[in-house]
Amino acid sequence: MSEGGSAIEKPIARLTIVGVGLIGGSLARALRGAGACREVVGYGRRVAPLERAVDLGVIDWFETDIAAAVQGAEIVVVCVPLGAMEGIFRAMPRQVAEHTILTDAGSAKGAVIEAARAAFGEIPSSFVPGHPIAGTEKSGVEASFAELYQNRRVILTPTSTTDPHAVERVRWMWEQTGAEVVNMEADHHDRVLAATSHLPHMLAYTLVHTLAQMNEREEIFRFAAGGFRDFTRIASSDPQMWHDICLANRAELLTSLDRYMAELSHLTELIRQRDGEQIRQIFARAKETRDGFSNWLG
Amino acid sequence: MSEGGSAIEKPIARLTIVGVGLIGGSLARALRGAGACREVVGYGRRVAPLERAVDLGVIDWFETDIAAAVQGAEIVVVCVPLGAMEGIFRAMPRQVAEHTILTDAGSAKGAVIEAARAAFGEIPSSFVPGHPIAGTEKSGVEASFAELYQNRRVILTPTSTTDPHAVERVRWMWEQTGAEVVNMEADHHDRVLAATSHLPHMLAYTLVHTLAQMNEREEIFRFAAGGFRDFTRIASSDPQMWHDICLANRAELLTSLDRYMAELSHLTELIRQRDGEQIRQIFARAKETRDGFSNWLG
Repeated sequence: MSEGGSAIEKPIARLTIVGVGLIGGSLARALRGAGACREVVGYGRRVAPLERAVDLGVIDWFETDIAAAVQGAEIVVVCVPLGAMEGIFRAMPRQVAEHTILTDAGSAKGAVIEAARAAFGEIPSSFVPGHPIAGTEKSGVEASFAELYQNRRVILTPTSTTDPHAVERVRWMWEQTGAEVVNMEADHHDRVLAATSHLPHMLAYTLVHTLAQMNEREEIFRFAAGGFRDFTRIASSDPQMWHDICLANRAELLTSLDRYMAELSHLTELIRQRDGEQIRQIFARAKETRDGFSNWLG
Repeated sequence: MSEGGSAIEKPIARLTIVGVGLIGGSLARALRGAGACREVVGYGRRVAPLERAVDLGVIDWFETDIAAAVQGAEIVVVCVPLGAMEGIFRAMPRQVAEHTILTDAGSAKGAVIEAARAAFGEIPSSFVPGHPIAGTEKSGVEASFAELYQNRRVILTPTSTTDPHAVERVRWMWEQTGAEVVNMEADHHDRVLAATSHLPHMLAYTLVHTLAQMNEREEIFRFAAGGFRDFTRIASSDPQMWHDICLANRAELLTSLDRYMAELSHLTELIRQRDGEQIRQIFARAKETRDGFSNWLG
């Protein structure tokens, strides 16, 4: 890789997107739109979506062989489901990890770092674990758009052995999409994301799953108001992706789930006992918290 | 009240809104905008918000005495929190319930019907229990707007003794706001709404309450993505109103909560046991259900 401050701000000579879906496709669109990338190569297992990505102008060309796809790339961004990460790393030629900057977009960082260690024998110094906190409930390159990362946050979780120049280059890349980039320890990332993203997805999936089993299911969805629509939108997220996240961030997610169920049981008991004052206090504190953070959340 | 089909479609001579907030204020705005109402009287306990409602053009004038407020009204719409319903009914002169159409906007119908029975000695034939399924997390007349009920549903839950003409008049009134009006048994309404609205509010309040107690609370809200924002918006809803709903629809809400907690415990166990196949199936079924109903839900 090139070194020095000025090299950090040059357009990426060749970017390889491994997994050209919503996340990878939106990254390619944003970088091309910003003039931050000269050439984009796509990798995937199936040809049809890759041809579609070329037609849409998201990538310049593609390979279905991973070694050919990463050959000569300056940056390789792996945007596959967490369960596929280790297989992708293992399929990569050894020298790619040494001479190319490797990064990813996985929603759980500890598991991806372990996958890299398992595949490469050690964590490559050129590997910058990353997670753009953005997405929609939709999937696929057709759903990708250049503005996905604008005003969103990207978390990088470099390890003690990660090359600082690689970190800075990946930071620069994400900044070109309009994102704010922050560094964080991987375990801290996984704890925060379990609470703020993985737990809510479990709650939404479980709500829809619960209601779908009721006799009144048709009417339940028919008479749902706006709050319910917003609340359940994330239950349309990709099942395979969320299956992978559950298993990859299992320990932190279980901690969050256990804590949540204790609180929900407590509220249920208060309702059972008609303890109006305690119920009101919980709602009031929650509202106060939510309102206090509405500058960030909207 | 007037009788016959043509009278059903005449503008309301005088409408009294008891509780001029988001719900009552939006109803008044919509009816005035549609030319469906000649005069709107507001009732409340505090003068300042009522003066504000006059300034905003939501009501023509107001009373802080309930008897004076409902005097001469063709329709009285009670839009107060559920816990205040019985007190309002008790304060009304007896003849109002007999010669005026009385309706309400409460989110739990069994409890409101019982409140009317307790206050009036029997359920007045002119009382049409109603529930517009609309709202935002905001409260107060300042948050009211004429379009709140457009393409929303209003459920009426008349009893076996309710005057059919009163039902038709109230139906007509809500139709003028752009809403679709349906009739339903009160207990069925309460079961459906427990699942689709009251339960999700408990889940959202509990999520924010849980996260607010974590050490990482600042970062949790800072790194929250769009899904979390949508998911927790309803936790900004009015605590007193939701306290009242919990107690008014307690039995159905407890049934929903118990069912939900059983499903969430089950999913948690599957994650604990790393049962990927079952996890994926739950997510896939939930996604299928949510996608299937997205025409209604958006």
